[in-house]
Amino acid sequence: MQTVNFNDNYFMKEALKEAREAFSKDEVPVGAVVVSNNKIIARSHNLTETLNDVTAHAEILAITSAAENLGGKYLTNCTLYVTLEPCIMCAGALQWSQISKIVIGAPDPKRGYSNFTPSPLHPKTSITTGIMETECSELIKEFFKRIR
Amino acid sequence: MQTVNFNDNYFMKEALKEAREAFSKDEVPVGAVVVSNNKIIARSHNLTETLNDVTAHAEILAITSAAENLGGKYLTNCTLYVTLEPCIMCAGALQWSQISKIVIGAPDPKRGYSNFTPSPLHPKTSITTGIMETECSELIKEFFKRIR
Repeated sequence: MQTVNFNDNYFMKEALKEAREAFSKDEVPVGAVVVSNNKIIARSHNLTETLNDVTAHAEILAITSAAENLGGKYLTNCTLYVTLEPCIMCAGALQWSQISKIVIGAPDPKRGYSNFTPSPLHPKTSITTGIMETECSELIKEFFKRIR
Repeated sequence: MQTVNFNDNYFMKEALKEAREAFSKDEVPVGAVVVSNNKIIARSHNLTETLNDVTAHAEILAITSAAENLGGKYLTNCTLYVTLEPCIMCAGALQWSQISKIVIGAPDPKRGYSNFTPSPLHPKTSITTGIMETECSELIKEFFKRIR
């Protein structure tokens, strides 16, 4: 019997599957999953083009979906895995959700929330960065190489 | 024949109607309208409790609705009227929308986007503040007085 090791890499791989799904739809390839008690309760990818909606980032869709799944709007016992550092809109949404933990793949030096002071995140939210950074980053680079 | 004067006060009054609608649903009373060529193309109010969704702020709903109405995701020739200074999530969404102008009623010294550096808004977006500030501010104060 195979034992599944539910670690950060395992869930980031799931977020990467979502990012690839976005890529296949000509969307900027960002994917996310929300995990509670080692179970994925929401999965999503960027759909801004498909939905004609600038707010349809992977994180916003994941927060809305996770809250619906839980039946409550706060994600206090949840972890978000996201392939790219959230923008300021998504960081603000994550702050309102009071999510426990955020695990980030690739940094976004241009648009990432960490460019802003003070930090827009909730003080109780813990952050892990650089999980499968190369894979997450390469996917974005490949996308922009292709459309230019 | 009565001539309607389409000025900032006129549209902020419409946003205030939306805020009062939120109040009647026990939602934090924030309302918004999006205007294009002197026509209201979207109107919304905060629905975070009703929808169980922290992202359901008046501004996010207004951006999504306006884009749907226009058939395109950018609001480059639009003005948002909102009764309360947007939070960082909403400011981020407004930045992505490339909206031309934002007209704000009451400031939000605690949660408002203007607490953050650099400004999260799009450099081409112009801002007007303090339109019907007293009415917008009183409505919020009345709400929090009632629920405490």
